[in-house]
Amino acid sequence: MTRTVVESKTKTAVLGFDEPFCVIGERINPTGRKKLAAELEAGDFSTVEKDALAQVAAGATVLDINAGVVYNSNPNPNETEPPLMTKIVELVQGLVEVPLCIDSSVPGALEAGLEAAEGRPLLNSVTGEEERLELVLPLVKKYNVPVVAISNDDTGISEDPDVRFDVAKKIVERAADFGIPAHDIVVDPLVMPIGAMATAGQQVFALVRRLREELGVNTTCGASNISFGLPNRHGINNAFLPMAMAAGMTSAIMNPVALPVGPKKLAEKKADVEAKGVILPPDMDDEAFCQLFGLGSTQPRAGKEMEAIRAANLLTNNDPHGGAWIKFNKAPEAEGAAGEGARGRRGGGRRRRA
Amino acid sequence: MTRTVVESKTKTAVLGFDEPFCVIGERINPTGRKKLAAELEAGDFSTVEKDALAQVAAGATVLDINAGVVYNSNPNPNETEPPLMTKIVELVQGLVEVPLCIDSSVPGALEAGLEAAEGRPLLNSVTGEEERLELVLPLVKKYNVPVVAISNDDTGISEDPDVRFDVAKKIVERAADFGIPAHDIVVDPLVMPIGAMATAGQQVFALVRRLREELGVNTTCGASNISFGLPNRHGINNAFLPMAMAAGMTSAIMNPVALPVGPKKLAEKKADVEAKGVILPPDMDDEAFCQLFGLGSTQPRAGKEMEAIRAANLLTNNDPHGGAWIKFNKAPEAEGAAGEGARGRRGGGRRRRA
Repeated sequence: MTRTVVESKTKTAVLGFDEPFCVIGERINPTGRKKLAAELEAGDFSTVEKDALAQVAAGATVLDINAGVVYNSNPNPNETEPPLMTKIVELVQGLVEVPLCIDSSVPGALEAGLEAAEGRPLLNSVTGEEERLELVLPLVKKYNVPVVAISNDDTGISEDPDVRFDVAKKIVERAADFGIPAHDIVVDPLVMPIGAMATAGQQVFALVRRLREELGVNTTCGASNISFGLPNRHGINNAFLPMAMAAGMTSAIMNPVALPVGPKKLAEKKADVEAKGVILPPDMDDEAFCQLFGLGSTQPRAGKEMEAIRAANLLTNNDPHGGAWIKFNKAPEAEGAAGEGARGRRGGGRRRRA
Repeated sequence: MTRTVVESKTKTAVLGFDEPFCVIGERINPTGRKKLAAELEAGDFSTVEKDALAQVAAGATVLDINAGVVYNSNPNPNETEPPLMTKIVELVQGLVEVPLCIDSSVPGALEAGLEAAEGRPLLNSVTGEEERLELVLPLVKKYNVPVVAISNDDTGISEDPDVRFDVAKKIVERAADFGIPAHDIVVDPLVMPIGAMATAGQQVFALVRRLREELGVNTTCGASNISFGLPNRHGINNAFLPMAMAAGMTSAIMNPVALPVGPKKLAEKKADVEAKGVILPPDMDDEAFCQLFGLGSTQPRAGKEMEAIRAANLLTNNDPHGGAWIKFNKAPEAEGAAGEGARGRRGGGRRRRA
């Protein structure tokens, strides 16, 4: 049975077909986060600390670390990214116990992360590109770590799933030449936005099944890509993750945290409340307001995707006796459970009568 | 390609591997609903009317009609159920346009429903029990209707999925002897509660795949059974339905309606609001209160399961260009779509960098 073991100094995360889904927190990544990038260049790590704690609290079992800041003071990431990676890895593993995923396109930053990380981190990533294979696989071998293998090559990302499968197969075979076992390769079959490609979901489900059955490898993906550009992205992601898990997907690089209610949304709701003639007590703080008006929380919480994943763990028989599900639902979020009883009896009743 | 055609006088619902999931509304069923049973015996059909309209509004494309009331005045359902079935079928098809599913364990009620229903209703159900086969299949042939085939037989419900598959196969073969084509058999592989059987989910997914690949039949299930006896049943159902759809399930008998906020919950919330020192305007009605405090609605609405099903339609490429998804999310429920944009860009960004 394929088991990919990722470790910190004190904790182990296992990717496997008979393991709960592995949630790799994606938040510690300045790509597309201008504010975070500026903070990091200025030596301010407060957001990194918050993101590390919030993601673990939300249920992430591995944290992705990407230090890809392009400094205004120095445009060469080969000089700036490695020391920043070292700094963030040391900071995060001093703060939380979960294993890390070292994520960079800069070779020096990958090696800096591997040097700084305790235990057995996951490396993110190798692709089918020749240069990348020759550059990353020796690091994977030298540090004896598992690696994310993204199924694109020098020809780019193919829209043909068979080509993406062949790229993954090539990476697994090339890794074998380096003495790297298939169980240390975690293939990302590449998730296309369903809004751009109507077959994107079916492609991923079929690919994950093939990768599992024919190559015996674990799989991961950038889960939120599936809903890119469409309304109510949570609604799509919440269905996509269980469907991918049913096909055999064993991990995802994703945001496990529900964004806290921001000042703008808070102000809008307060204006709405006032307009409706409701008078609030002067001493009511924002968090109390959010909770009373069903607005969520000013604090980060586990996102709905985590509920979908925990339910899918139960439905794939990776939550023995439903212990994790029951514990998860002792949280205040567990609404309507009682109210559902009646419907359950009806459902059961229909069966008995049929 | 397997297509099961269900029709009213004016509308057609098609079950198929390349069709949107068929939601068969289960609410019009007195089993386990004492209040409804009493109303029906008293000739009060107001709840049936409400349930019919609410289920269609929530997205049901077929309505199940079960008239299984055991009258206090007459304990013999063979006398009381057929006329009640006729009455409800006539009432419902006068009220809504969707096709019906005639649901009874009483032979006379099945025939009464078939006589009363316009178009081509779905019959619910036949099993692998000899008596039931000999009794129901002639009706299916005589009225040329599709039928739900539940995979239990005279030995009961087997916990072995291979036995349940063989029962389904026997029903399809027996139907063929009557000249009934496989595309008019909709197999219910039987969903066990995951709380009682840890492999219940995996069994259904594997069975649905086999039924589709080996028998080429459409499938249905009593979806809510999966979560029976567990907390936060919605959370489990919302993951189960997309997973079943990914395996090839083409319909479910379920409740598409979110239960409206009841007087008890309303009173509790109002007490909580008051206790927190909030002053409400005297003229605020209950619906406005529910909406302002994020409590849902005093009116029935589409349940979260309908969002999961619509997302899964999109992910199985049964929602061309996402038209139905986008339309569905123009409703006020479509929250956070904008807020998600940033995450999408990050997700995309990670891909570009990787």
